[in-house]
Amino acid sequence: MGEGKIVVAIDSELKHNAVDLARSVSDYIYAVKVNWPLILERGIGIVKELSSITRVICDLKLADIPNTNRLIAEKIISAGGFAIIAHAFCGMDSLKAVKFTEKVRLISVIAMTHPGGDEYINGHWEKLLKTATEAGSYGIIAPGNNPVILSRVKKSAGELKIFSPGIGTQGGDPVTAIKNGADFIIVGRTVYDSDDPVSVVSEMRSRIGSYD
Amino acid sequence: MGEGKIVVAIDSELKHNAVDLARSVSDYIYAVKVNWPLILERGIGIVKELSSITRVICDLKLADIPNTNRLIAEKIISAGGFAIIAHAFCGMDSLKAVKFTEKVRLISVIAMTHPGGDEYINGHWEKLLKTATEAGSYGIIAPGNNPVILSRVKKSAGELKIFSPGIGTQGGDPVTAIKNGADFIIVGRTVYDSDDPVSVVSEMRSRIGSYD
Repeated sequence: MGEGKIVVAIDSELKHNAVDLARSVSDYIYAVKVNWPLILERGIGIVKELSSITRVICDLKLADIPNTNRLIAEKIISAGGFAIIAHAFCGMDSLKAVKFTEKVRLISVIAMTHPGGDEYINGHWEKLLKTATEAGSYGIIAPGNNPVILSRVKKSAGELKIFSPGIGTQGGDPVTAIKNGADFIIVGRTVYDSDDPVSVVSEMRSRIGSYD
Repeated sequence: MGEGKIVVAIDSELKHNAVDLARSVSDYIYAVKVNWPLILERGIGIVKELSSITRVICDLKLADIPNTNRLIAEKIISAGGFAIIAHAFCGMDSLKAVKFTEKVRLISVIAMTHPGGDEYINGHWEKLLKTATEAGSYGIIAPGNNPVILSRVKKSAGELKIFSPGIGTQGGDPVTAIKNGADFIIVGRTVYDSDDPVSVVSEMRSRIGSYD
């Protein structure tokens, strides 16, 4: 398994096959992140396949009643998933249902990077962080392209790992995000849309340098 | 296609195969509702298969950034899905991304039936309903086991169809929910855990009677 602070989101296979991409960059990254479109395309087997190469964070944005959240989490953990991303917005019982066993690493969404995130979620991040903490989260999602929220989240996050999307195409800079408190930066299009993902990731890791 | 006001949630295949269940009750119901656990188990092909029998409402509780919501919606529509359930709490742009074409029937969640729903979402239902309406929703989800919220939602819902879960095992009564404003009642365990789903559904339809 690779180490470091980079998580590569594999949102698209238009340019590179997901498994090939994961294999090529696995030495430089901490994990890959997959979401529903890839799972719909490939079936849940893709989680198992990628898990044999690196850690797989399943970005499912779970937001259902406890029973359904738990059923989904069970299937992901059986497939070898490293962590599951769920919304804190559906409350404590729904989050706790994802973390149905000690084996689950729960990463809770407490803020989002798109404009609609400001309509409801982002204004509640402090309470959502409390819910996430009490539910036994391993980490939280906080925007890497919003230095103000990110550094405030960092001050209140305690032991929780901060995973920050919004890096690269969405405007966030890896080093700035890490300085502001990100434990892991999530990079998507910048890597999977590149002709040479290995160079992009290895250069990014060099830039992160001593923060690694 | 059947008509009426009953939507059968097929959350589990422990007792009945999903396709067999849909086929057996299709004359008595308006639609079936499927969610992620079934899709993970069967692949997206199950949406296509069920769509040849009845309308399929895909209860995905989508809650992601616009680009991801749209990618998922595209796959569901390609598979023949009748409607997609998404969360209004991720804001207008995320909801509009689900409704990327006139062909999509978007059903927006503005309130939830579990205790955690009261922590964040349910207190915002009036604003969420506004977001849902402006995003071009076909319908909304409002709790069938909460007469107070349901009847208040009905007064503000305009042309939006109201789909109400929480009927049966979760305490809501079909006729009461319809009297309080539900256009469609969603019934799950009461049907799929039954030894005789056809009797359950046909009796429920008789009880609904003149409200049908």
